[in-house]
Amino acid sequence: MGDIRFGIAGLGRLGKTHAMNIANTISGAQLVAACSVVEEELAFANNELGVNETYSTYEEMVNSPNIDAVCIVTPSGFHTEQICLAMEKGLHVFSEKPLGLEIEDIERTVETIQAHPDQVFQLGFMRRYDESYQYAKEMVDKGELGELTVIRCYGIDPSAGLESFVKFAKSNNSGGLFADMAIHDIDLVRWFSNKEVNRVWAMGKNAAYPELDDANELETGAAMMQLEDKTTAIIVAGRNAQHGYHVETELIGTKGMLRVAAVPEKNLVSVFNEHGVVRPTSQNFPERFKGAFLNEMKEFITCIKEKRQPDVSAYDGLQGTKIAAALQESVDKNQIVDVN
Amino acid sequence: MGDIRFGIAGLGRLGKTHAMNIANTISGAQLVAACSVVEEELAFANNELGVNETYSTYEEMVNSPNIDAVCIVTPSGFHTEQICLAMEKGLHVFSEKPLGLEIEDIERTVETIQAHPDQVFQLGFMRRYDESYQYAKEMVDKGELGELTVIRCYGIDPSAGLESFVKFAKSNNSGGLFADMAIHDIDLVRWFSNKEVNRVWAMGKNAAYPELDDANELETGAAMMQLEDKTTAIIVAGRNAQHGYHVETELIGTKGMLRVAAVPEKNLVSVFNEHGVVRPTSQNFPERFKGAFLNEMKEFITCIKEKRQPDVSAYDGLQGTKIAAALQESVDKNQIVDVN
Amino acid sequence: MGDIRFGIAGLGRLGKTHAMNIANTISGAQLVAACSVVEEELAFANNELGVNETYSTYEEMVNSPNIDAVCIVTPSGFHTEQICLAMEKGLHVFSEKPLGLEIEDIERTVETIQAHPDQVFQLGFMRRYDESYQYAKEMVDKGELGELTVIRCYGIDPSAGLESFVKFAKSNNSGGLFADMAIHDIDLVRWFSNKEVNRVWAMGKNAAYPELDDANELETGAAMMQLEDKTTAIIVAGRNAQHGYHVETELIGTKGMLRVAAVPEKNLVSVFNEHGVVRPTSQNFPERFKGAFLNEMKEFITCIKEKRQPDVSAYDGLQGTKIAAALQESVDKNQIVDVN
Amino acid sequence: MGDIRFGIAGLGRLGKTHAMNIANTISGAQLVAACSVVEEELAFANNELGVNETYSTYEEMVNSPNIDAVCIVTPSGFHTEQICLAMEKGLHVFSEKPLGLEIEDIERTVETIQAHPDQVFQLGFMRRYDESYQYAKEMVDKGELGELTVIRCYGIDPSAGLESFVKFAKSNNSGGLFADMAIHDIDLVRWFSNKEVNRVWAMGKNAAYPELDDANELETGAAMMQLEDKTTAIIVAGRNAQHGYHVETELIGTKGMLRVAAVPEKNLVSVFNEHGVVRPTSQNFPERFKGAFLNEMKEFITCIKEKRQPDVSAYDGLQGTKIAAALQESVDKNQIVDVN
Repeated sequence: MGDIRFGIAGLGRLGKTHAMNIANTISGAQLVAACSVVEEELAFANNELGVNETYSTYEEMVNSPNIDAVCIVTPSGFHTEQICLAMEKGLHVFSEKPLGLEIEDIERTVETIQAHPDQVFQLGFMRRYDESYQYAKEMVDKGELGELTVIRCYGIDPSAGLESFVKFAKSNNSGGLFADMAIHDIDLVRWFSNKEVNRVWAMGKNAAYPELDDANELETGAAMMQLEDKTTAIIVAGRNAQHGYHVETELIGTKGMLRVAAVPEKNLVSVFNEHGVVRPTSQNFPERFKGAFLNEMKEFITCIKEKRQPDVSAYDGLQGTKIAAALQESVDKNQIVDVN
Repeated sequence: MGDIRFGIAGLGRLGKTHAMNIANTISGAQLVAACSVVEEELAFANNELGVNETYSTYEEMVNSPNIDAVCIVTPSGFHTEQICLAMEKGLHVFSEKPLGLEIEDIERTVETIQAHPDQVFQLGFMRRYDESYQYAKEMVDKGELGELTVIRCYGIDPSAGLESFVKFAKSNNSGGLFADMAIHDIDLVRWFSNKEVNRVWAMGKNAAYPELDDANELETGAAMMQLEDKTTAIIVAGRNAQHGYHVETELIGTKGMLRVAAVPEKNLVSVFNEHGVVRPTSQNFPERFKGAFLNEMKEFITCIKEKRQPDVSAYDGLQGTKIAAALQESVDKNQIVDVN
Repeated sequence: MGDIRFGIAGLGRLGKTHAMNIANTISGAQLVAACSVVEEELAFANNELGVNETYSTYEEMVNSPNIDAVCIVTPSGFHTEQICLAMEKGLHVFSEKPLGLEIEDIERTVETIQAHPDQVFQLGFMRRYDESYQYAKEMVDKGELGELTVIRCYGIDPSAGLESFVKFAKSNNSGGLFADMAIHDIDLVRWFSNKEVNRVWAMGKNAAYPELDDANELETGAAMMQLEDKTTAIIVAGRNAQHGYHVETELIGTKGMLRVAAVPEKNLVSVFNEHGVVRPTSQNFPERFKGAFLNEMKEFITCIKEKRQPDVSAYDGLQGTKIAAALQESVDKNQIVDVN
Repeated sequence: MGDIRFGIAGLGRLGKTHAMNIANTISGAQLVAACSVVEEELAFANNELGVNETYSTYEEMVNSPNIDAVCIVTPSGFHTEQICLAMEKGLHVFSEKPLGLEIEDIERTVETIQAHPDQVFQLGFMRRYDESYQYAKEMVDKGELGELTVIRCYGIDPSAGLESFVKFAKSNNSGGLFADMAIHDIDLVRWFSNKEVNRVWAMGKNAAYPELDDANELETGAAMMQLEDKTTAIIVAGRNAQHGYHVETELIGTKGMLRVAAVPEKNLVSVFNEHGVVRPTSQNFPERFKGAFLNEMKEFITCIKEKRQPDVSAYDGLQGTKIAAALQESVDKNQIVDVN
């Protein structure tokens, strides 16, 4: 089989990452088309990445006879429609998370995807493709931790972005802390445990920016979730980590515990200075998950070539969104919410 | 003021620790009396620690004219009665946690204690006197972490003791995981936050020893608590840490985060061997909190000499027990429980 | 400028790494030719990497009109001759370290290279292109450590390979521990300090395999070197790290200290198990320096396109070899040796 | 046997530490006498520690019939004479390091000590009594590291004290960096290896304070030493650690490596703030070796009671001083020096 020919939709920060990976780094793939409503992004695709076909609408792009697959990196509200359209055109689809914003839309989309089992669909839960997470998953699957009893997932954005988020939140809806950020952590809980979530309680507090209360947003939130086998999952999500980008996962099992990125080490350097002994830290998701973004796209391409589906499915996207919605409802009511 | 003369009640593992600290290590104190129902323990006190007065009953000991203070390290069920008796005899009282088992008893005991404001009363929440916890508390109080938003406390006993606990639990009532073990973590939450707990949800799972279900005991449990100012407190308690004795506390604030014993380092040694790079770990509470047990007793003695009360009060004991009871009720009902 | 077309010489373990990087991963490069005396290696190049031109001799390959550059990954004894031949053919040359085995040969080769300033020459000191080392170098160059006073470099191979090395050493000459292994550390000393080495003393000990004494090889060796500005450089080289592949560098300056890979962390995972708290470790150089091998080749290609020379020069190779030779002489004499 | 009654000579910073340990903390000992030329120090002993007998001369104190043992914490130049005098008076002697300043004096003192085998003599190499060092020593002695091949010892004082040292050095002789500071590291090398040092090379550099060149002092120095069994010992000594008090020891063996205080952790706290993830560090020797100072004195007292000699002998002091002298000679000549 020859190179997989991609069209990319959306060329913002993460879109550019995917575009460059497809165009320059991954063997067996070509980036032949791009669509965006931003002129400069198309110029970038054309000039820097050698993309020949540029489109101002997604519909035009998916009609191109020259593409085998699309990579969707548009705003979340467009995902379900764009996924369905590509599926109907016979294209393989890689879509950034979340699958969509409304449960009903997502359910229809999952049906559409499942109706095209010969086309590969992959959702951008890239953490599953990070080598530290893969190492952890392998240990769990081999039974080296025994049976899991507690899973703890932290996802805290750097403080550097908090002020601009506060401004954004005054006139926009992020979807809420759990849908916007903890969605990755929710997926990790399901992935590591192979279990579904039954009941949740979530809460949060706006301490640095109390005005976030008015926007129904949370600076820092936490949740406890009970899985179907009584395993406890704990989530902390936030937007105010002074030390950088803090994504940490802990697995407690009957035979041992494991932590991924308890210290979000930037590299292998330690500095001994007037502050003490310092480990520099990752500052943002492109830095932390650089390898994971590459690996997930390689996996997508390999799945197309090997005619199989990836580990992460549309159903995972649906379940993640359902749980995130339950967490938000729990915050709003300050009560336990049953999922389903 | 001369040496403070102690009588000690109970000379089990922790009793011996206190007895040796008072008799041998702390200046300004003498151990002059001991009571125990175990003959060998009294012989130990006499022969090894030079204790002159040994008694088979607590009542006899508190009638001795030669003691200024008692140190109570008897089974939890005796605490309230023994505290009250000593208070009425005009003695200063150091009592191991918990203050008692029944809320009503504890409330009466708190009243008795408060009716004798010139006698020092201190409860054995020794973690407050550990130097790492004191360093953390000082940072919090100086505002170096900003306003706290999340507090996470782990207290997990080593797996080495699990099998014998399972046997014990078949015919005894430990009081439950939260009252027996998380009581220290509950106190840390209140101490660091200076806030009370409003609502709690707790759960747990018996994976290695499912027979603990029958004993209504938990091998591993978790709880989320909402404080009066919306701060979230997360607790994990357990009896199955393969690597040793895992007591860890995390404080997340608007200006920074802090962890005490994220790795429960035994000492300053790292070993590079076929397992990787290994930090040996603390194996039990006498090892981990050796310095804290010493410091708390020094503080008790200093309080007597300086005629003041310690930082940790009978009220702290009452509140801790109330919260632990709410956690247990929450486990039993699998529902949120309001404290109070 | 179009893609840089490569011929590769040698397709052993490291040769394959370079070949796959050029063929599959790095944009702007093609692998068009390969030479090897091993039939299977050529078949691999042809079948797996799509290399069209395969040769059994280096001379044939460099006569191909279709290549712009060679990547030399042959046994060390061939390097100088192959470099000179490629240079004379007008090709850009990337050569694995060492530049050569004999100082005179190397000096002639450096002259040849310098006589072709329009062709890019780069030596495979890949550590300079590792992101942790680059972070460290940037800190040093910005003055964040002040003036350097001590540099410590460890390079210890995993014990896993020691037994086979002992067999190898009985009938082969590795060049000695310092030329074979510490050459990278010597380069780091010169790179970080921007200073030359004046005097050295080296020693070593064969404890696990005393029979290495007969082969004039060292299981573990150490050296102290005095740089021209009195900075001390300390080197430990070895073949017996039970925990894996230990490459560590320390920089002590007047304003701070820094360590690269004090713990050779494999990834971001910590495991809490019966051994203690364990950081898994890198096991070999392809794992540890995967990114560095990629980055150095990208830099080579960029240099060709931008018509400039890389940071690491043929002169660096010459100086490194001179110092390694002085270290070996010092071991043999158990005396200080002056470098030039 | 009753309490051991001590006289202490010298009540400076370290003298006070020993005095308080003897007077207040260690059971089985009493501080009954003190001598000092500083009036305030004697007042402190009398008022704070309840010392009844205070003397302005050492000679008077050792004539007191009320003391069993002396603790010598006077300036180094007085040690040999004071040790001999106490020995001749039949007293047990604990002396701070170094044993003395001149090899001949020390040799005579060792003879005097050896002529009184029934009196306990102990030298203040307190690191041997630190619990991390004891853990390491036990591992070595059990063979868990196999045969040692390299020992690396760092002893670097905090930068905080450097400026005042520079002033001091202009008109005083510290004895040199190796005798003044590395003496503890030299002792560790001998203790861990059970081997003597054969040959040494030492050097150093004054970068922050070049004026130290004139005082023949070193801000940062390093040494390599060859032991009788070819083990390499590496020493770095300095006065300019920005992060605090850095005492680190590494043991490399055929079966594993071990580091004591690779990060000189102050406590179990990690701080996650704008600098990264920070481990606070020990700031000075009283903080770092608080437990060791206590343990060594307990051991001295136990030795008296059990009528045996401690692990650290006068001979260890002699050998340490010989090696330190060889290191200084090596710096002065910039040549290898053989130790005898």
